[in-house]
Amino acid sequence: MTSTKTPVSVIGLGRLGAALAEAFLANGHPTTVWNRSPGKTEDLAAKGATVAGSLTKAIEASPLVLTVLAHHGAVRELLDPVVGSLSGRTLLNISSSTPEDIRKLATWAQGHGADYLDGAVMAVPQAIGSADAQVLYSGSTAAFDSYGEQLGVLGAARYVGEDPGVAELYSYALLSAGYGTLFGFLHGTAMLDSAGVRPTEFLALAVPWLNGMVAFLSEIARETETGDYSTGESSLDINLFALENIVAASRTAGVDPAFHLPTVDAVRKRIAAGNGDESASSVFEVMRTRG
Amino acid sequence: MTSTKTPVSVIGLGRLGAALAEAFLANGHPTTVWNRSPGKTEDLAAKGATVAGSLTKAIEASPLVLTVLAHHGAVRELLDPVVGSLSGRTLLNISSSTPEDIRKLATWAQGHGADYLDGAVMAVPQAIGSADAQVLYSGSTAAFDSYGEQLGVLGAARYVGEDPGVAELYSYALLSAGYGTLFGFLHGTAMLDSAGVRPTEFLALAVPWLNGMVAFLSEIARETETGDYSTGESSLDINLFALENIVAASRTAGVDPAFHLPTVDAVRKRIAAGNGDESASSVFEVMRTRG
Repeated sequence: MTSTKTPVSVIGLGRLGAALAEAFLANGHPTTVWNRSPGKTEDLAAKGATVAGSLTKAIEASPLVLTVLAHHGAVRELLDPVVGSLSGRTLLNISSSTPEDIRKLATWAQGHGADYLDGAVMAVPQAIGSADAQVLYSGSTAAFDSYGEQLGVLGAARYVGEDPGVAELYSYALLSAGYGTLFGFLHGTAMLDSAGVRPTEFLALAVPWLNGMVAFLSEIARETETGDYSTGESSLDINLFALENIVAASRTAGVDPAFHLPTVDAVRKRIAAGNGDESASSVFEVMRTRG
Repeated sequence: MTSTKTPVSVIGLGRLGAALAEAFLANGHPTTVWNRSPGKTEDLAAKGATVAGSLTKAIEASPLVLTVLAHHGAVRELLDPVVGSLSGRTLLNISSSTPEDIRKLATWAQGHGADYLDGAVMAVPQAIGSADAQVLYSGSTAAFDSYGEQLGVLGAARYVGEDPGVAELYSYALLSAGYGTLFGFLHGTAMLDSAGVRPTEFLALAVPWLNGMVAFLSEIARETETGDYSTGESSLDINLFALENIVAASRTAGVDPAFHLPTVDAVRKRIAAGNGDESASSVFEVMRTRG
């Protein structure tokens, strides 16, 4: 059986790598796989994957080569001995790392004649291949444009910039907001647990409240973007009072207030700078680095 | 002009107290107002409020007496000299404090023959009187049942329990989740700012991501309620890896990672207890106090 679809190679067959390879196979792409330790390839071979006999052969099998390893250091270490075969191909790296390290990896790959694209998967492996799996890409515009169809197979593809590190940065920024929501909710759940309120009782009020908060972020984003923090609603002084009450009420309930202490500090810092009448969003000015 | 509606008294005319009095006036309730410092009553008098000549007269004017002061200590201090006049009335206290202090205030009021109801306003003063203003009530069930119509005038009323402190506890739990969302988003905004990404660009991705996270909280609530933290999706070990990457990427971007450090600690604590394969929601077990 021959296919007119672009061949792809997937290097690194952990849960995510295997899920990505399966998505390609399910969409009829000739898919070559390779893993450092053997044994992980059997399931994929049964689904039609070609198991490469060597790393070099895995790379040479396709113009689009995915690396799905634990971190960028592992990518560099693995590919260094066979870097000559990367020339003329596109390296799509899905391995997590800091944006700074990703930028170094991109420069290294480009220096060896490869086009570099970075992918940040904002989904659990089970969601790969569905529209629910958002995948962010950054780096070579040409590579993203060339492989649009292939990338669409993995999930909803979104290109976020030429800076190769920016997809990872976006992913950490999204996780930052997501973890804030999750652990803020868990902290509230623990506070109410002290009075015998069940988590699902809290959920019933928390969901509409948080939906309102998410809708309100458009105002927060506008304020941070324009630097106009004048507010007729809720000043930093009022927010500090509320935060201090959360901390005190947590302590009385026997719940460690640690989650909220850095926020209290940041708000106090902004108030000490003379900005107590500004919106809560102005804390951005003590968080950011660019003036 | 006479009214068949229940007279109400509002003591304390800051922005919130004035907004509550206005909502009663707008709905035809005979409304008596009083404030420690004069001058704040003029606007309300022009709208039809009766300005009481003394605190005692303000209390005696209505069966439902609202206190809207900075904190519970101010309520006790103010009402102590005139506590006899509270007997047989309902005290609806809207002043913020810790649930523990609210419980003491309720016991004190009940000891003087008053029915005690606590109100927690989950809205800015401007929203009072609209369905967008959620107001939580706890304490006397009889009082909440008797004054349903009056309370509905202020916003969407919800009774959350007989424990007088639980409305305040709910409000801090909701604020905890809301602040987690807000400051997690601001932290992410600051990370992306380091790469020149504008807040409204981030917003476009953050809103659907956070809507998904809020929807996911039903699973989190179910896990914490049942104590079943077995997960096929994302384990604590995987979440720790992501959190450590956020911290490292923040540092590289010049953004203070402080916001996420307590979460990293809590996750590490749970993993150290041997639960690294559990869902992130199991951090609830190190946050809560009840076994």
